[in-house]
Amino acid sequence: MTTARGYAAQSATSPLAPIQFERREPGARDVQLEVLFCGICHSDLHQARDEWGGSAFPMVPGHEIVGRVTRVGADVTKFKVGDLAGVGCMVDACRTCPSCKEGLEQYCAQTPVYTYNSKERDGKTPTQGGYSDVLVVDQDFVLKVPANLDPARAAPLLCAGITTYSPLRHWKVGPGQRVGVVGLGGLGHMGVKFARAMGAHVVVFSHTDKKKQDALRLGAHEVVVSSNAEEMEARAGTLDFVLDTVSAPHDINAYLGLLRRDGSLVLVGVPEKPLPLQPFSLIAQRRSFSGSSIGGINETQEMLDFCGKHEVLSDVEVIPIQQVNEAYTRLLKGDVKYRFVIDMRSLKE
Amino acid sequence: MTTARGYAAQSATSPLAPIQFERREPGARDVQLEVLFCGICHSDLHQARDEWGGSAFPMVPGHEIVGRVTRVGADVTKFKVGDLAGVGCMVDACRTCPSCKEGLEQYCAQTPVYTYNSKERDGKTPTQGGYSDVLVVDQDFVLKVPANLDPARAAPLLCAGITTYSPLRHWKVGPGQRVGVVGLGGLGHMGVKFARAMGAHVVVFSHTDKKKQDALRLGAHEVVVSSNAEEMEARAGTLDFVLDTVSAPHDINAYLGLLRRDGSLVLVGVPEKPLPLQPFSLIAQRRSFSGSSIGGINETQEMLDFCGKHEVLSDVEVIPIQQVNEAYTRLLKGDVKYRFVIDMRSLKE
Repeated sequence: MTTARGYAAQSATSPLAPIQFERREPGARDVQLEVLFCGICHSDLHQARDEWGGSAFPMVPGHEIVGRVTRVGADVTKFKVGDLAGVGCMVDACRTCPSCKEGLEQYCAQTPVYTYNSKERDGKTPTQGGYSDVLVVDQDFVLKVPANLDPARAAPLLCAGITTYSPLRHWKVGPGQRVGVVGLGGLGHMGVKFARAMGAHVVVFSHTDKKKQDALRLGAHEVVVSSNAEEMEARAGTLDFVLDTVSAPHDINAYLGLLRRDGSLVLVGVPEKPLPLQPFSLIAQRRSFSGSSIGGINETQEMLDFCGKHEVLSDVEVIPIQQVNEAYTRLLKGDVKYRFVIDMRSLKE
Repeated sequence: MTTARGYAAQSATSPLAPIQFERREPGARDVQLEVLFCGICHSDLHQARDEWGGSAFPMVPGHEIVGRVTRVGADVTKFKVGDLAGVGCMVDACRTCPSCKEGLEQYCAQTPVYTYNSKERDGKTPTQGGYSDVLVVDQDFVLKVPANLDPARAAPLLCAGITTYSPLRHWKVGPGQRVGVVGLGGLGHMGVKFARAMGAHVVVFSHTDKKKQDALRLGAHEVVVSSNAEEMEARAGTLDFVLDTVSAPHDINAYLGLLRRDGSLVLVGVPEKPLPLQPFSLIAQRRSFSGSSIGGINETQEMLDFCGKHEVLSDVEVIPIQQVNEAYTRLLKGDVKYRFVIDMRSLKE
């Protein structure tokens, strides 16, 4: 076993604090990483505070991980020591169900093994995430990070990136299409960058005009203040696709009304309470309201390669691990542009 | 002008009663029909009682019409006197918007001209429906009814039929698929027949087991009582498609949970109040919740031809027009198997 150092929540109400714990010795198919950077996803906070229920403690959060390969097992062919590598939300899955066989491990019929707050395939060993110095993961769930990408800015691609890239690809967003992005946070700012890089006309919907200049800088062609009824009305029925990244309660019917006939709105944020949906919002123009969860491993690699080619990266604020609790507080206020990323070298300080 | 006789609501609170009114002389492209049978759709009742707002009176309801051609205009090529013909929910549309050009007149950007409680393209002449003895409609919005179909049982195809056929076709339901039909009323019983005729495995969801034998007779392979948690749980994640025909409030999340990954639930009923939608119901397996409204003219013809070929017809209870108010009362109680159809010869009594 390898002793790992990290930051963990000991309970739903305790702040994150230093911890030492054991990682397994790399098996024949395992890759061991030195974690360089780990993004802070809102779901880290939800789970550390047990807001979704069922959290297991102690919990080392973190699933937006970029690291350097330090050891490889005997059968590892994909990686060699020194490679830049990434790990996202999953570290394993059943590999035999129809979804796994189609490369959609995120929809694994037995639920995937998540990077933390989950159990390994043995059903008992808890997984621990990337707020730590070392990680051991089966090579099939480790991604290659293109060498031209800044590793700090690449870390959020492993969750915020793939979560927005996957639906844009699945619903075939491309040139000639008008795409709305609702919300401009960690997910939304990646959605804007991807939709733009895919060639779409991008309209950002934000509840205030504070982020207008930023949205344009990130790649939006237009910014609409969603509380402005006139601006909203002017876009009614004009969009081919809407990516909704908002986790707070919001009026989904207002955004469905923006879609053309046969358009799709895809939710990637996870509002805690049910959204009241007006049937006529869908029936009037045969619209669809869908949801999407992260992305499969092959698609995550495709996304990273796309980012390497198009130089798509997250806008980040790099912090030392010692500021993680303060970052959580700021995250709750939406006070981050647009993703906190922990520099894991700070663990040694 | 031609004097027509029919039954009309004079206000939102008055029962339907006899009326005489004028129909236009057939123009060059018009077809005049003697109405033989007209189905009673729940939307007739909603509009006659102004439950959706904006109703105009006097109102002659009825948009499930089968009749015999009695006159044709000089330029009419599609029909000749004596033909069996049908008219559904629309009698015109703008014909120039993208939806009209694609044969999806029901999604006309200027809203179609509905068969009643609407205005002709002149913006002022009120339209009046099929609870009457004579109808005059542009040939482009008149359908050919296959001669082998019983006209009384064919009438409901013009709304209940196309409303269920269209989404089954659009979402490509066919052999090898498992399809759920929620609700077994006027729409639901047609959904069962179509899904079965298209080769799918059909599972009917009903809130009681009263309709079980009937559902099997109509073509269902299985019937699930939706209040039985065990039966519902056993079907979780097993269906490719769900056709939801329920207009009353109901737990949409329970039915979304029946879908496999990438499955679609399509709502064709129109519940008056918003449905609380749990985001996770969609996100968990990339499911879609969509709506669909009737069908275009070409597709309605395709549906009628399909019915002619597969002998698909509505199960009806034929009544004289004098019982229309009683039928409305029974409709509200769900006391009909499965569609009331008015025999318009009764107008002459």
